Amino acid sequence: MARIAVVAGDGIGPEVVAQARKVIDAVLPGVTATEYDLGAARYHRTGEVLPDSVLTELAGHDAILLGAVGDPTVPPGVLERGLLLKLRFAFDQYVNLRPSRLWPGTAGPLANVKPGEVDLVVVREGTEGLYAGAGGSLHRDTPAEVATEESLNTRHGVERVIRDAFTRAARRERRRVTLVHKTNVLTHAGSLWARAFEAVAAEHPDVTTEYQHVDAAAMFLVTQPQRYDVVVTDNLFGDILTDIAAAVTGGIGLAASGCINPEGRYPSMFEPVHGSAPDIAGKGVADPVAAVLSAALLLEQLGHPDAAVRVTEAVATELSQRTPGVPLRTEEVGDRLAGYATA
Amino acid sequence: MARIAVVAGDGIGPEVVAQARKVIDAVLPGVTATEYDLGAARYHRTGEVLPDSVLTELAGHDAILLGAVGDPTVPPGVLERGLLLKLRFAFDQYVNLRPSRLWPGTAGPLANVKPGEVDLVVVREGTEGLYAGAGGSLHRDTPAEVATEESLNTRHGVERVIRDAFTRAARRERRRVTLVHKTNVLTHAGSLWARAFEAVAAEHPDVTTEYQHVDAAAMFLVTQPQRYDVVVTDNLFGDILTDIAAAVTGGIGLAASGCINPEGRYPSMFEPVHGSAPDIAGKGVADPVAAVLSAALLLEQLGHPDAAVRVTEAVATELSQRTPGVPLRTEEVGDRLAGYATA
Ligand SMILES: CC(C)[C@H](C(=O)O)[C@@H](O)C(=O)O
Ligand SMILES: CC(C)[C@H](C(=O)O)[C@@H](O)C(=O)O
Repeated sequence: MARIAVVAGDGIGPEVVAQARKVIDAVLPGVTATEYDLGAARYHRTGEVLPDSVLTELAGHDAILLGAVGDPTVPPGVLERGLLLKLRFAFDQYVNLRPSRLWPGTAGPLANVKPGEVDLVVVREGTEGLYAGAGGSLHRDTPAEVATEESLNTRHGVERVIRDAFTRAARRERRRVTLVHKTNVLTHAGSLWARAFEAVAAEHPDVTTEYQHVDAAAMFLVTQPQRYDVVVTDNLFGDILTDIAAAVTGGIGLAASGCINPEGRYPSMFEPVHGSAPDIAGKGVADPVAAVLSAALLLEQLGHPDAAVRVTEAVATELSQRTPGVPLRTEEVGDRLAGYATA
Repeated sequence: MARIAVVAGDGIGPEVVAQARKVIDAVLPGVTATEYDLGAARYHRTGEVLPDSVLTELAGHDAILLGAVGDPTVPPGVLERGLLLKLRFAFDQYVNLRPSRLWPGTAGPLANVKPGEVDLVVVREGTEGLYAGAGGSLHRDTPAEVATEESLNTRHGVERVIRDAFTRAARRERRRVTLVHKTNVLTHAGSLWARAFEAVAAEHPDVTTEYQHVDAAAMFLVTQPQRYDVVVTDNLFGDILTDIAAAVTGGIGLAASGCINPEGRYPSMFEPVHGSAPDIAGKGVADPVAAVLSAALLLEQLGHPDAAVRVTEAVATELSQRTPGVPLRTEEVGDRLAGYATA
């Protein structure tokens, strides 16, 4: 039976993760969960972000379920680089999977897009690009200061994430992959991405392909999100595009994500995109839906697609029955979701 | 009297630029214009993109009015790097100015945003960052290929564009500047941008400031574009964010831009954001409004703020009187705008 590591984290993390675990237990009894105390709270208490011993322990699990880490009191970069990105890189989570759906029963901000019409997934590269940490500065704090950030792209890294995107697209109804880059300006990396894309596309004659520059894609995600099926893109573009996709489908409050090592050599990690939301933490009013949808991605990755579908459909039921404006209780939502998923 | 260089370019470029010139002539008689044949057509005919002799001639003008360059038949990067970016860098156009308004009479895609509510300007850095052209590749076309792109940021370059943003904000009603970066991941460049921002902010106690990560800004531009006044950001983030801002204010069909060398040591360049739109070229149906608004930015930069306001108000009149769905004629719109601007 699956062994998962749980990093509930900061702010609303513990509250929403508790509901995600409740739902996992309901659809797949017997999963064992070990809690790890990581995040802003631990950092403030001990000065530690991610001790090597914890990293080693985490590596022994089948997956990681993460709530949220972060707090305005921690300097920028400390938890991002030291914890989230460290895990993504250490566990070679090269597929950062971010589905976006405009769920029936919900309202997006776009006047011309009706619930049910948007169903896309961004396959964001997770271990390269501008996130590699290559860069530096000279003459800091003088008028001569120069600072660099370097985007590193390898054929190995680019091709494997593109291949993952095509494999996912081949299993979907529309079977369409959009490559997003900026080949007209970032000509070196752009050319590598474009050539790798072409090569993998040739292995999938059944999948339709298109290319868009990132600025155009950002625009079309706003004006015609319905047109997308699978989008594959680099780490930084994916960071931006997935927040746009979340925005047009009702906000990051509903957005799930998975940082996946597809071969299962290392644990994959699943987390709601919303962050720790310190303003509403501890009040029992956070929406656990994004955490529960992240749990569905976890179940799917661990080889339980039926359980994943049941959880996803429970969310669809829950959302379609909500009355706009009526406040929710985190626990009650979790109870309902567990109920729907096992009905 | 001002001497401008006109690069009408490809596709609908010549049609819309003709209307922009008509309006300039109406509000500021006596401007002399010299036409330069650059773009996809010239490249195909002669193999030339931007001969040094033309660059030198352009440098002798007070400003450049550009229609659109580009065509699907030209390989990616050739005209972008060889012409547009070359001009931006050669003429040190470090302020890439992109205003976005949801004009009364127009419809944006957002259900909750009413015409008249959005009025923001993005001040995008234009001469540094990932656009510097630093990067390369090794082992091309082998499994070992690696490709890099480097973002170069100098205190000089960052501070001057931030200063420009504050100066603009200080003249606006809301006097608010939002810095957008990704300081939690791009820690070197992010720190430089954040420190330069703080230093310049200290010179402007009357201006309110905030910071957002680029992913959050992309999201808020979709959900709450009303909240922004002046946004300052780096070259690539600005490329993406301005297309989102255009999308939420009715599309790039209405978006104007200026590549500005504020000191006037080199000519500034003004162009509609829409591109050459080969599908509708030559039919006399392209909307010249974005080109005319770009001409307004040109007039403002050349020290004719009253003429600029008259042109901008002519556009407001034109847009408020349009009936959705009624096709327009490029020439007629130009005639009306010239009329309104001189009424
Ligand atoms: C917190 C940050 C490092 C992270 C990222 O940029 O990847 C976040 O924005 C995300 O999208 O998961
Ligand atoms: C054509 C391209 C080089 C350009 C850019 O990326 O700056 C365009 O997208 C723009 O925004 O003006």
